Amino acid sequence: MLKGNAIIGQSGGPTAAINATLAGVIRGAYASEAIDKVYGMLNGIEGALKGTVCLLNDVVKTEEDIEALSHTPAAALGSCRLKLPKLEDDRAPYEQLFKFFKENNIRYFFYIGGNDSMDTVAKLSLYAAETDYEIRFMGVPKTIDNDVAGTDHTPGYGSSAKFIAATMQEIIRDTAVYKVKAVTIVEIMGRDAGWLTAAAGLPGLYTDVKPDLIYLPEVPFDYDKYYEDVQRIFEDHPNVVVAISEGARLADGTYLGASAQSGVTDVFGHAYLSGTGKALELATKAKLGCKVRSVELNLPQRCASHIASGTDIAESLQVGAAAVDAAVNGVTGKMMVFKRISDDPYKVVCDSEDIQKIANKVREVPRDYINDRGNYVTDECLRYIAPLIQGECDIRYQNGLPVHFVIK
Amino acid sequence: MLKGNAIIGQSGGPTAAINATLAGVIRGAYASEAIDKVYGMLNGIEGALKGTVCLLNDVVKTEEDIEALSHTPAAALGSCRLKLPKLEDDRAPYEQLFKFFKENNIRYFFYIGGNDSMDTVAKLSLYAAETDYEIRFMGVPKTIDNDVAGTDHTPGYGSSAKFIAATMQEIIRDTAVYKVKAVTIVEIMGRDAGWLTAAAGLPGLYTDVKPDLIYLPEVPFDYDKYYEDVQRIFEDHPNVVVAISEGARLADGTYLGASAQSGVTDVFGHAYLSGTGKALELATKAKLGCKVRSVELNLPQRCASHIASGTDIAESLQVGAAAVDAAVNGVTGKMMVFKRISDDPYKVVCDSEDIQKIANKVREVPRDYINDRGNYVTDECLRYIAPLIQGECDIRYQNGLPVHFVIK
Repeated sequence: MLKGNAIIGQSGGPTAAINATLAGVIRGAYASEAIDKVYGMLNGIEGALKGTVCLLNDVVKTEEDIEALSHTPAAALGSCRLKLPKLEDDRAPYEQLFKFFKENNIRYFFYIGGNDSMDTVAKLSLYAAETDYEIRFMGVPKTIDNDVAGTDHTPGYGSSAKFIAATMQEIIRDTAVYKVKAVTIVEIMGRDAGWLTAAAGLPGLYTDVKPDLIYLPEVPFDYDKYYEDVQRIFEDHPNVVVAISEGARLADGTYLGASAQSGVTDVFGHAYLSGTGKALELATKAKLGCKVRSVELNLPQRCASHIASGTDIAESLQVGAAAVDAAVNGVTGKMMVFKRISDDPYKVVCDSEDIQKIANKVREVPRDYINDRGNYVTDECLRYIAPLIQGECDIRYQNGLPVHFVIK
Repeated sequence: MLKGNAIIGQSGGPTAAINATLAGVIRGAYASEAIDKVYGMLNGIEGALKGTVCLLNDVVKTEEDIEALSHTPAAALGSCRLKLPKLEDDRAPYEQLFKFFKENNIRYFFYIGGNDSMDTVAKLSLYAAETDYEIRFMGVPKTIDNDVAGTDHTPGYGSSAKFIAATMQEIIRDTAVYKVKAVTIVEIMGRDAGWLTAAAGLPGLYTDVKPDLIYLPEVPFDYDKYYEDVQRIFEDHPNVVVAISEGARLADGTYLGASAQSGVTDVFGHAYLSGTGKALELATKAKLGCKVRSVELNLPQRCASHIASGTDIAESLQVGAAAVDAAVNGVTGKMMVFKRISDDPYKVVCDSEDIQKIANKVREVPRDYINDRGNYVTDECLRYIAPLIQGECDIRYQNGLPVHFVIK
């Protein structure tokens, strides 16, 4: 058994579950006989390069701390967007990092993040193979976008999906109170994949509350078909609710916000890059003349930990601890994944995959998860997502607000 | 004791608590010996005019229904924006309404809404005084804006304030993960009064998490002072978070989104009326050159019942039932209000006030609740708001989503 210290970092954009994964790694490391001290890199790999780290044993002390950390949004260790150079281009940062590892007897390195973070793990493990210093590198994915290959889903997605589905349900109630014809457009995150926008349809799996139209980036957006659809729905009811991905684009690949139809220029006459929802709002108002409103769900999609998915948080804790187990058992240079072994009852297991096989692939929503007309998702798609939003977290409130756990 | 049937309506913009007030009136009416049947007007006074009503006794049957209704956002009976004409201008709608009341032996009329709804209650009670048909009219205020005179606060405000405070706390965590200079602007509802925006400061009353700057409509916004403030804060930390009211305006009364500084025109060269947050985002980016993002909290502010304030929902139920008590005891033509009789412990009682004394007055945030520089609220202001967001609701979830109660 390889004995020594461990270090953990977080990288890329925040989610409501990335701290739960951190908490899982910490819990796993504390429980492991192989691991002595547990360090945290402040602001990801930048912290390891600069030696700005903290001793987590002194900060996250009790099971209560681990619980509170797992319900805190964003990256408690801070994040960065630094990508290591290719080994053949510049060996200096690798030498510096390994010097730091050796000085601190660090034998286990856990990195929680997106594609770039997995790239860091892959490069470090390649470099390690050339040295005689034994150290294991493990990646744990996180992204609200759910677009990582090789895994059934990503930690963080379920919580965002739950926020989106619950908020859609509330917005649909809100828009239904008047009888005047109106279109409400809800813009949802996801530049390349429509998984988050698809979640807007979840309420409809169980009730008759659902958006009327759902547009993902995977199918080109067609204004004419869209206007037809809205007109047709108006014949049935006055309040039309549209969920659209920020990544929706026209057949020629132009994003809606960048297309001429948004009709907005800045003081210099340049096309003004509005959001997708705003562009569709302006176009709809101009074409149909009815009341139109757009809502951008924005940052709360990725940080609304007060309504995190119980399943997502539990799995994030689990996959963090599983990463420690795998590393202690000799795995290195791999990324943790979920494998769904049963749909009903829903059951997943944690496993690890070669990063090289996964890296830089975007897992889009399959075409057959979207209806023929490209304006809604199928029940099969919704049934895939549904288990990921089940369960509520027992959030601790103090003075009327959720309690967050602060490192640093 | 005046015996007969009752009718209830909802009007104006939705809130997370307007159905709790409805549930409170229903609960009070069911419990009263004076009241037999309880009708609901569909889409407010429009429903009473057209005779489109429902018999609530057949719809809201159990205490469980009342609970679920009180946790459902928006107006379950539907809403309208209809204002009755002045009596001297047109008596026809009054005659029509009273014909309907007589035919259905309606002796109690409860109207939950904003200023326009209180106007309706006042006019109907004036008309009633001229007839020999005995009927009592009671208004119960609701608005997330908290800008109604004569009451300590309004039902609906506490839930919005809790959502805003919790979301600010989450957004501040989210923005803190990177070390690159960035400004995040959060636009909060409130065209004429800054109560909702003030709530953004609540996390700072208990923790060191708070926005850096808070701008309300009550003090003119000054771009130069704002840029100075942001520069000064950058010397201390890289992530500046600004809460700004949609109603913020310059010294000349221009809304930020309508001012030239937003710098955006539409295809016809007309100034494009962006939101306040977007205008400030564009101006900040142009002036300071740093990363700037704006977030508009939008509809979720008024419909996020999944994080409603326990105090707000309990008080909304209470004031609904108190309206029934008052009416049965002979009160008519009045609006229900809260009177705060103690700050610590927080304690309010329900009372009623003459609508004429209250109507059409906007209760702004007092100047001494805002600091001298006009860029933050005082602790006294936050201590006034704090009790209103205390407590969490026991929301029932099914299939991972909050359960809503549907009438109609």
